[in-house]
Amino acid sequence: MWLKTSCDLSFNIEVPTPFVLMLRPRSGAQQWIASEQYKLAPSVPAFEFTDGYGNLCQRLVAQPGYFSIHTRAEAKTADFLDQAPGAPFVEIQNLPDAVLNYLLPSRYCESDRFGQLALEITYGQFLGYDQVAAIENWLRTNISYTPGANDIQVTAIEINTRQWGVCRDMAHLGIALCRSLSIPARMVVGYLYGLQPMDLHAWFEAYIGDRWYTFDATQPCLRGGYVAIGYGRDAADVAVYNQFGPGVYPSSQVVSVEQISESTIGN
Amino acid sequence: MWLKTSCDLSFNIEVPTPFVLMLRPRSGAQQWIASEQYKLAPSVPAFEFTDGYGNLCQRLVAQPGYFSIHTRAEAKTADFLDQAPGAPFVEIQNLPDAVLNYLLPSRYCESDRFGQLALEITYGQFLGYDQVAAIENWLRTNISYTPGANDIQVTAIEINTRQWGVCRDMAHLGIALCRSLSIPARMVVGYLYGLQPMDLHAWFEAYIGDRWYTFDATQPCLRGGYVAIGYGRDAADVAVYNQFGPGVYPSSQVVSVEQISESTIGN
Amino acid sequence: MWLKTSCDLSFNIEVPTPFVLMLRPRSGAQQWIASEQYKLAPSVPAFEFTDGYGNLCQRLVAQPGYFSIHTRAEAKTADFLDQAPGAPFVEIQNLPDAVLNYLLPSRYCESDRFGQLALEITYGQFLGYDQVAAIENWLRTNISYTPGANDIQVTAIEINTRQWGVCRDMAHLGIALCRSLSIPARMVVGYLYGLQPMDLHAWFEAYIGDRWYTFDATQPCLRGGYVAIGYGRDAADVAVYNQFGPGVYPSSQVVSVEQISESTIGN
Amino acid sequence: MWLKTSCDLSFNIEVPTPFVLMLRPRSGAQQWIASEQYKLAPSVPAFEFTDGYGNLCQRLVAQPGYFSIHTRAEAKTADFLDQAPGAPFVEIQNLPDAVLNYLLPSRYCESDRFGQLALEITYGQFLGYDQVAAIENWLRTNISYTPGANDIQVTAIEINTRQWGVCRDMAHLGIALCRSLSIPARMVVGYLYGLQPMDLHAWFEAYIGDRWYTFDATQPCLRGGYVAIGYGRDAADVAVYNQFGPGVYPSSQVVSVEQISESTIGN
Repeated sequence: MWLKTSCDLSFNIEVPTPFVLMLRPRSGAQQWIASEQYKLAPSVPAFEFTDGYGNLCQRLVAQPGYFSIHTRAEAKTADFLDQAPGAPFVEIQNLPDAVLNYLLPSRYCESDRFGQLALEITYGQFLGYDQVAAIENWLRTNISYTPGANDIQVTAIEINTRQWGVCRDMAHLGIALCRSLSIPARMVVGYLYGLQPMDLHAWFEAYIGDRWYTFDATQPCLRGGYVAIGYGRDAADVAVYNQFGPGVYPSSQVVSVEQISESTIGN
Repeated sequence: MWLKTSCDLSFNIEVPTPFVLMLRPRSGAQQWIASEQYKLAPSVPAFEFTDGYGNLCQRLVAQPGYFSIHTRAEAKTADFLDQAPGAPFVEIQNLPDAVLNYLLPSRYCESDRFGQLALEITYGQFLGYDQVAAIENWLRTNISYTPGANDIQVTAIEINTRQWGVCRDMAHLGIALCRSLSIPARMVVGYLYGLQPMDLHAWFEAYIGDRWYTFDATQPCLRGGYVAIGYGRDAADVAVYNQFGPGVYPSSQVVSVEQISESTIGN
Repeated sequence: MWLKTSCDLSFNIEVPTPFVLMLRPRSGAQQWIASEQYKLAPSVPAFEFTDGYGNLCQRLVAQPGYFSIHTRAEAKTADFLDQAPGAPFVEIQNLPDAVLNYLLPSRYCESDRFGQLALEITYGQFLGYDQVAAIENWLRTNISYTPGANDIQVTAIEINTRQWGVCRDMAHLGIALCRSLSIPARMVVGYLYGLQPMDLHAWFEAYIGDRWYTFDATQPCLRGGYVAIGYGRDAADVAVYNQFGPGVYPSSQVVSVEQISESTIGN
Repeated sequence: MWLKTSCDLSFNIEVPTPFVLMLRPRSGAQQWIASEQYKLAPSVPAFEFTDGYGNLCQRLVAQPGYFSIHTRAEAKTADFLDQAPGAPFVEIQNLPDAVLNYLLPSRYCESDRFGQLALEITYGQFLGYDQVAAIENWLRTNISYTPGANDIQVTAIEINTRQWGVCRDMAHLGIALCRSLSIPARMVVGYLYGLQPMDLHAWFEAYIGDRWYTFDATQPCLRGGYVAIGYGRDAADVAVYNQFGPGVYPSSQVVSVEQISESTIGN
């Protein structure tokens, strides 16, 4: 499936404000980025670097006044994401070094507190993919998905207590449960075709067998149309923008994802 | 000052248990490691890698039975740690890419919740080193340092509420306060000569001017005798050992730090 | 200056052939990539990674038959590249760790053999920028720039002997001379507006003061219009494509760089 | 087999001289470092970093006068290095990203010039381990190993022409031949028990199946007793010391490797 994604952010800036942006999708396992646009208005110098998770980030200082960021991409995504029922748990000693980081608790995923619950949820499951699928299903059943609820960021513990959350929250609880079973799990932020209401989306991946698999408890079943932008331990790592200092006024954020025909790519 | 450090850990293992160890100090800004010993009993194969924070880690699988880890090091440390009153805050746009990571909230340091408190504590201070020194002093005055209190890991928010903590807790709150002011801060685990009671220790560093400076609110004033073992965003990143899976029984941990004469090094 | 760059590569493939591509410019010190397109025909799965020099690379396997790669970018580049006469040499002990690598000899830059010549060329110059400027001038005067000469890759020693070369050769000799003076130097491959005849271009950068500066002995003087694609120790690191195995037949390579108006960006 | 290694380097320094050292073996696939000592005389501040190949390096500035470096290690090494006749060649597309670097030509290994010779040497061999074993045997037969010949560094092309070389040369030619067959190969510097005459040693590794295997054409057959210190593309990357600038006078280098009993470790 070919998709055209866009994200437009705008800010009222009061004092010169440093930003770190993470808005560039990269070609990878199940997506190919055929084209990208990136526009800053007004234009300011920007410096690009790769963070510790492999994300492409841009640093810049926005000047006082109106400031906006416009990104577009044309991407080919899988029609159906890979699934692997029965894929086995990887023993810790066999995990790649770079994956170990995704076993540790993090800001919004207190995996050190979920061992008992994770065992209950996955009782009787074959170790590995089936455990994560059980966690995903448990989230669908037990946590009420409330898109658009514009609350402050809360952690997996709080989500488990209040039993509702936005996409980010569903992912955080899923990640915490996986890690408590020694299954590496990470947060993904990106686009999803057909998301209602349309916005940036978040889901999670778990490392099983010898690769990462996608899970998303906000959807009734796993389908295609995902475009990943950034990866991290949790939402603290994958903010599409971080701004520093005071004086940034309510921003607008407009996101769209349309299906396009391959023949129009690059026109 | 020349120091001889040792750390002996022992475990009763029930099932084959993967470990990741972080017990090797490295030579750096204010320490030189003249010798090191590392003994596993019984001996098992171990693989070394450098994690995302630059720490030297070892991976191994301990077999059922008694398992112990013995490390020794001879280190030259600074008699007095560098201090820099007046050193200026670094604007975000001028921070090295690799330091940006230390501005984000993390598992035990919810820096996104401490902006108001940090402003109050540092009111009237020159931006930079003096702000962190004010935070360190505030911690000394307001958080009761209770070494040896063997509680579960709690976060900066909880520490600020209950107003007491072990060294790790003091560092977490200090880090959270620094980051909320856009000052990069990181956790350090290591040894401290003269610590009472002797154990592994934790403190924090803040990035000011063009380098990291050490702060430690558990001590009445900053002196020398620190040997750093590992660096990270918070305690989740710098566990001297992480073991995975069930079946590991209460371990003993014996730490010592003695002053030695340079003439005995390597004997 | 806004530029539109394009590069079209085509191959006749006989057996399935792995490629590593390096064709994505990144925003940085003196360039901003406003848009990018990347098309493979026929389309094949591709995986992106960042290499040890920070370059964005794509891995894929081309199938037998006709295979082509089309890239486009719209970039804002500096009208005049930064120059810094008098900028001082950085003592080795003060260089960033990541820059040390660019002091070592490499495949095409035998810097260990050029100490005497470099001292002669830079005799009397202030250490740092002025030395590299003297090297650049010496190259202009002594090595005949022969664009389009389609020879095999030769090394700095061979270039110095035969006294002519393509852009890559001029850069290699410049890099070797810089490194022999303990000035870090690296190869850059990219586009240059107005290059005659138009093709991909190569130049070099030297680390002086606290940053990299651009040098290009193939041009009578340093002007703007450069779009960097990749960085490395020498041409071995920055091939825009590496293919592995036999059965790849003469490829065509068509490059263009046009000036555009900012108002047309993204249309 | 338990070994005690030592390396003592001494220099007469005329002007303050920056050094980068690479003298710390690390625990890994087939070696465990039980203890290490590192002494600088006179003592100077040193900073440690991990280079792009994973090697632990130390940076320091030696002051005018006599300067010496003394290292000791106690290491457990494999009695017999792993061998894997029949282990298959890894298709380029399946190699880990971090291994691709070892396919490229480098300073002393002009692998782009050895395709024909490598095909002849390995004619009829099963692709993978058996090809590298054939290369190793060809080196034993065709290149005269002349330990102690203290010549300047030459490249694989020159070695193949003159048909004799030290250990480093044998490794360079082996590496160049492997890479020309698209088999990743890297240089290793370290110690070898029983080497005659005793000195630092160099050998090479090739990536086959899913790991690195050791090859050493200087020895009649592969046995144990190897302690690796550093890894790189070739000798340019793995100098145990690099010093910069003039004024360093002939150094002495004394190396020893003794077998020890496990019971004496750490005494």
